[in-house]
Amino acid sequence: YIQELQLNLEQIEKGGYEHFMLKEIYEQPNAIKDTYRGRLQSRDNFVKMSGIEDNLRKFTNANRIIIVACGTSWHAGLVAEYIFETIATVPVEVEYASEFRYRNPIINSQDVVIAISQSGETADTLAAIKLAKEKGAFVFGVCNVVGSSIARETHAGAYTHAGPEIGVASTKAFTTQITVLTLLALKLGKANGTLSNSEFNKYLLELESIPEKVEKTLLTDEHVKYIASIFKDAANFLYLGRGYNFPVALEGALKLKEISYIHAEGYPAAEMKHGPIALIDEQMPVVVIATKKGHYEKIISNIQEIKSRKGKIIAVVTQGDTQVKKLADHTIEVPETIEPLTPLLTTIPLQLLSYHIAVMRGCNVDQPRNLAKSVTVE
Amino acid sequence: YIQELQLNLEQIEKGGYEHFMLKEIYEQPNAIKDTYRGRLQSRDNFVKMSGIEDNLRKFTNANRIIIVACGTSWHAGLVAEYIFETIATVPVEVEYASEFRYRNPIINSQDVVIAISQSGETADTLAAIKLAKEKGAFVFGVCNVVGSSIARETHAGAYTHAGPEIGVASTKAFTTQITVLTLLALKLGKANGTLSNSEFNKYLLELESIPEKVEKTLLTDEHVKYIASIFKDAANFLYLGRGYNFPVALEGALKLKEISYIHAEGYPAAEMKHGPIALIDEQMPVVVIATKKGHYEKIISNIQEIKSRKGKIIAVVTQGDTQVKKLADHTIEVPETIEPLTPLLTTIPLQLLSYHIAVMRGCNVDQPRNLAKSVTVE
Repeated sequence: YIQELQLNLEQIEKGGYEHFMLKEIYEQPNAIKDTYRGRLQSRDNFVKMSGIEDNLRKFTNANRIIIVACGTSWHAGLVAEYIFETIATVPVEVEYASEFRYRNPIINSQDVVIAISQSGETADTLAAIKLAKEKGAFVFGVCNVVGSSIARETHAGAYTHAGPEIGVASTKAFTTQITVLTLLALKLGKANGTLSNSEFNKYLLELESIPEKVEKTLLTDEHVKYIASIFKDAANFLYLGRGYNFPVALEGALKLKEISYIHAEGYPAAEMKHGPIALIDEQMPVVVIATKKGHYEKIISNIQEIKSRKGKIIAVVTQGDTQVKKLADHTIEVPETIEPLTPLLTTIPLQLLSYHIAVMRGCNVDQPRNLAKSVTVE
Repeated sequence: YIQELQLNLEQIEKGGYEHFMLKEIYEQPNAIKDTYRGRLQSRDNFVKMSGIEDNLRKFTNANRIIIVACGTSWHAGLVAEYIFETIATVPVEVEYASEFRYRNPIINSQDVVIAISQSGETADTLAAIKLAKEKGAFVFGVCNVVGSSIARETHAGAYTHAGPEIGVASTKAFTTQITVLTLLALKLGKANGTLSNSEFNKYLLELESIPEKVEKTLLTDEHVKYIASIFKDAANFLYLGRGYNFPVALEGALKLKEISYIHAEGYPAAEMKHGPIALIDEQMPVVVIATKKGHYEKIISNIQEIKSRKGKIIAVVTQGDTQVKKLADHTIEVPETIEPLTPLLTTIPLQLLSYHIAVMRGCNVDQPRNLAKSVTVE
């Protein structure tokens, strides 16, 4: 008795998931682990990254680090800015690759440029790299695709080991980029002497526990799906965060734009009162990242401002939170971690939220209209 | 025979205009002139600004300039970033004051911090100034209100002489902030030796001609009003620009948000293909700043991408433009000027557009809901 296998190749590749995007969201615990494997050596209190070790002087002597990227990678760069400035106390500037390449940026041989691109083929980023090299800067690449143009054009680099990303809306590329950049910042902070051995070790142990915490965060999926069902017909969304989670707000909004075609916009929470708060009424869902680390009290007062204008609050909070729960319409819990690593957790429910809303709206999640996976044109 | 004057105080203050905002938009030629009067001395090829002269060393020795601001002032800071880097070749970073103050920014006595605030009372900016001073930075203020807290808390500064701004949505404060910052960049570029005497003079003469060109730009008012009547019911808007005009796109979107409660978002034009282009359909009006200076060809290809997705284009173009006119649904002409000064012209029709749309939607233009003129809370 033979049972015929009714699966086509694409179904096999999707591994039982409805869409590549969902599969890739769920792959993140392993993708993050694959990215730090061999590099993060908590027992020896060491980070091994040959691309940096061979060029450590370039990094420790750098006046500043300039990060160039586009789209989601640019958001990973913004998270990295905060991480580098905290852990390694080096000034960082993050630039849109497309803007950087067309003005006359002030860079020289004392500067380190980090270029981030999942595909390693992003045309604007590639052009920015060439310009930075001409000006004598040392250029370090962070790509996912091995042997890609950016990997070849940079002086050194570190791959994310996320595995192939098929969904056009980037998910695991984002969290693995943050993982690699955190390792880089740690290595630099230790070399600079800005981190003590014990602080360094604390970071390593905490980063090592992130995959398990992402796993736990993925358990919110059903609850996030329920929230999605409530807001799926919204015409607009705002996403707010502060500090490390401001770029997460930008990224959450971008996901929703990309796959559900809802006009969503991210903002640093405190800027809201300088304009965007005028948009708030009972029609406006506002996603707020309000983990306990990171200006918790300030975020609570932002939430109160929104509630007093009748906005609907979906808050991402730390497990066990009680204060935000009293104010928000819906809360999504993520496990506790140290502040610089919160983006690796808070971004997960926002990916799921955009995914479910897009599915409910009947959108083509893996191949949204107008978008290409890798933007190789200018 | 006595005719009784049927005007109340507010009507007198509005000087015959329907709203303070419109009055202030129309005041810009004079406000800009008042701001450079006495400072811009084109005949002597000199810029006189005592706040800089007394501290010139601080500026010429600076490793970098950090601009802190909120809202519209933050957009003026972004324009200034491009101007400083071009004219004075000093690296500039622009920070949201609210973000700057809550992380541990890397600044020291080698850095110059420029704080921008119309009211001079913005709480987050004031807090950022105090932090920068504690860290030993030299802090320079750009305010409109004489004797304000920020004017008192900074080491030196330069006032914009825009006169009182009553409308909550900032207009003349923005253009006069750019004027003052341009003068500062010119002074610095000359001191640095990065500008030749003839280039310096060319800038002075061109800046001197801006009020007249703003006057000409204001003649587009009726045409802009017509465009407003077509798009007044739109639920969303995108604003795109590149280089110097990327911040103008952000500012144009903010104006529309603030007073008409339409969800408008600004983007650097080239980033559109990394996500926001998914939003484009026949419902989406897209305002594109497409002056001949500033990556004209690149902007044209962005416009083509939008048209092929059936988006509606409202383009701000240089007088006499023919290429964009063929593609765009509507064009608004501004006089020609040198690229770094284009924001002073391109921003005018965007102010008018938001004004007319808000009036047509019956919104309270001068006192939009939820907003305060000066944000003195955190």
